[in-house]
Amino acid sequence: MRIVELGESALKKGRDLAIENKKFLDTKGVFAFDVMGSVGSGKTSIIKWLVRKLKGDYKIGVIAGDLTTEVDALRIEEEGVPVVQAHTGRVCHLDPGLVRTAIENLPLDDIDVLFIENVGNLICPAAVPIGVHKEMVVTSVTEGPYMIKKHPYMFQRVDYVAINKIDLQKAMNVSVHGLEEDLRELNPNAIVIGTNGITGEGVDKLIQCMSFQQ
Amino acid sequence: MRIVELGESALKKGRDLAIENKKFLDTKGVFAFDVMGSVGSGKTSIIKWLVRKLKGDYKIGVIAGDLTTEVDALRIEEEGVPVVQAHTGRVCHLDPGLVRTAIENLPLDDIDVLFIENVGNLICPAAVPIGVHKEMVVTSVTEGPYMIKKHPYMFQRVDYVAINKIDLQKAMNVSVHGLEEDLRELNPNAIVIGTNGITGEGVDKLIQCMSFQQ
Repeated sequence: MRIVELGESALKKGRDLAIENKKFLDTKGVFAFDVMGSVGSGKTSIIKWLVRKLKGDYKIGVIAGDLTTEVDALRIEEEGVPVVQAHTGRVCHLDPGLVRTAIENLPLDDIDVLFIENVGNLICPAAVPIGVHKEMVVTSVTEGPYMIKKHPYMFQRVDYVAINKIDLQKAMNVSVHGLEEDLRELNPNAIVIGTNGITGEGVDKLIQCMSFQQ
Repeated sequence: MRIVELGESALKKGRDLAIENKKFLDTKGVFAFDVMGSVGSGKTSIIKWLVRKLKGDYKIGVIAGDLTTEVDALRIEEEGVPVVQAHTGRVCHLDPGLVRTAIENLPLDDIDVLFIENVGNLICPAAVPIGVHKEMVVTSVTEGPYMIKKHPYMFQRVDYVAINKIDLQKAMNVSVHGLEEDLRELNPNAIVIGTNGITGEGVDKLIQCMSFQQ
């Protein structure tokens, strides 16, 4: 695992750099996902399941974004795929400059599919595109009944929503169905799948609905 | 309920304005709490319980921060205390200018204790003091085992930590005890109480440990 810090990030930011990132990934034949979601929603668990189930068919790489720790990267590295940790310090989102540095630290010739785990919150990453092909949110029923309504900017643009911790629907009195209804008002086209990050339930269905090439 | 938008906020920001807010609250005899935490952690539920249990002894006011909705303010208003909704739009934290505008929209002569619910994430509010006397985080076992370790800037400075949803410790395989150990490495002085935002368990103990005047 390599660690890149935000300080290494180029000063040039914003949409142009995100577009450049995507073009660069295209030239390398890498199809990339931005995986967003609140802290503890289960982003790392779902990425681990995706890696485990996809690594027979695709060459996978992962960038794990976090403020200061490496706990997520270490968990994903257990799957035997290349992982780069990107540290943002006090910043609440990955930015495209930092992502570019992280991408360049991966063995791109040996990667078909790249999962980029963003920093844990539903607000900042919605405002800062990093240059990917598809966007996914992992959210969980334990975040309560309002988490989709409260984050329209995030949910109106994503391609996939994994609603995680489905085993706790009854305990939380929050249903996947109710959250999906909230989502439909913001985003009629997103693919929504209930998942369990511990058992892997729902991940096969999620994979069936995902695209891995343009 | 009044609603103030971020646009109304003065341009002057930062620590000076936070200090001015605190001085202003002191002249009005108002003791203020910044209540922070991730989305769905239970900030609103715990504030509702605090209001319900304290309103016989103190005159309470509440400022509810959120991106765009009023759901939290409406829930707190059911307790019959003055509530101002502060909208931040796409911004991931309350700022002291917006808070000042919200404070000035409250009947301060009828308020002893003010709870200010910050925007739902553990990152941005840690970087932006708003001008209060005490800081509280409401976090929950359903945010997983790493949420304290991942947010040192937040947890090293707060006065009170309510670890919520204690009824789900076993289902999540996350214990209040383990989280408290993580916290102790960052912040030996914070008061930590396990709570249940549905039943109110732990809230009396929390209140016993809180200060309501300087």
